[in-house]
Amino acid sequence: MTKTLAFVLYPGITPLDLVGPLQVLSALAQIDPTFEVAVVGQNLVPLGTDTPLKLVPSHTFDQVTEPFALIVPGGTEPTLAALANEPLLSWIRKAAQTADVVGSVCTGSLILGAAGLLDGRQATTHWGFRDLLAKFGATPTAERWVESGPLLTAAGVSAGIDMALHLVERLAGEQTARTVQLFIEYDPQPPLGGIDWSSADLDSFKLHARAMLASALADHPALLARLTT
Amino acid sequence: MTKTLAFVLYPGITPLDLVGPLQVLSALAQIDPTFEVAVVGQNLVPLGTDTPLKLVPSHTFDQVTEPFALIVPGGTEPTLAALANEPLLSWIRKAAQTADVVGSVCTGSLILGAAGLLDGRQATTHWGFRDLLAKFGATPTAERWVESGPLLTAAGVSAGIDMALHLVERLAGEQTARTVQLFIEYDPQPPLGGIDWSSADLDSFKLHARAMLASALADHPALLARLTT
Repeated sequence: MTKTLAFVLYPGITPLDLVGPLQVLSALAQIDPTFEVAVVGQNLVPLGTDTPLKLVPSHTFDQVTEPFALIVPGGTEPTLAALANEPLLSWIRKAAQTADVVGSVCTGSLILGAAGLLDGRQATTHWGFRDLLAKFGATPTAERWVESGPLLTAAGVSAGIDMALHLVERLAGEQTARTVQLFIEYDPQPPLGGIDWSSADLDSFKLHARAMLASALADHPALLARLTT
Repeated sequence: MTKTLAFVLYPGITPLDLVGPLQVLSALAQIDPTFEVAVVGQNLVPLGTDTPLKLVPSHTFDQVTEPFALIVPGGTEPTLAALANEPLLSWIRKAAQTADVVGSVCTGSLILGAAGLLDGRQATTHWGFRDLLAKFGATPTAERWVESGPLLTAAGVSAGIDMALHLVERLAGEQTARTVQLFIEYDPQPPLGGIDWSSADLDSFKLHARAMLASALADHPALLARLTT
């Protein structure tokens, strides 16, 4: 039986969170037809992102009931609002019961947390939101990606590419992972080098992140209180 | 006046080619409102990609006539077919006349070539198609990205992220580029390291690339002959 790798779409995401690992796992599915990729959403309508691009899912939640893997992308304020999106959380909770891989990119891990899937696990997320993971019972871990049982969480945005290549290696071996990496010419050369964490201004973004959280969950005071006190 | 950074959408692209630099330049526009980002296409309808995801432009070609920058993503067979897409080439040709930056990711540079914009320039593209650049009068250059006059071309797929960060640095300075890099947590850690070009099997993909070209341009024998003889 074909194993479905399901990307979860909801309004307002950061599209690179989804498209990075989608491109990697679509290449896997092209090489190894025991895998197929789907993009699942509540309806098949175009959804806005935090860029001017709109994205359209390939399948509804109802059409994909037992994926082999699910991967939840993140974003900014709309993702924080999605912590109270019950149809989304409900599909994730149900799919996670039978999935071998329960994955996320960036603040997508907070949605896994809201679905009750982080309790007792190690996890990561975008650096600006990492301490929130503890509110969901997880141990925040500052790694590019973190495996903990079925859970596979990546750091912010671009980290989904690294996580997905690791997943390809795990599912189909090193040679296939190298072939996928070659297809997408992933030989990164950040013009200014990697991030210099020691000199970066992390505090002003973290303040901004807290303000986004308060705004996103203004109509859900109990959840907001749980995450901020 | 606001400077528009226009991403060009057409059927069947590799979505990471577009979404990588789109995410980077959308962050620039958020930090520096003298820039805005648009995704332009012939119509505002969802377009398929080489994954199950569909993408919807934010503007039609008619709505964006004098962008400050245009960036053309690439892909596989549908991109090669687009070398004969006259409405697309015509918009690109006209926009390029006044644009400060004429950019591409991956095989998007071949589309710039088909529009007559590579003649006498240094350029790059996905490694599997690099020698085709010479057919358009360009000097193929094996770099992560290449600047040559207004032309800014990136290597395959993921290289668009590096190119876009370079462009942010050029347009808005090093500090803004570092902030964008921090937002998207671009601190790459490919699980198997960078690409080992010396041991990679490049030849079988190149054969496949030639077969794609022949199939994509079957109805355009003159163009096909120009690119293959």
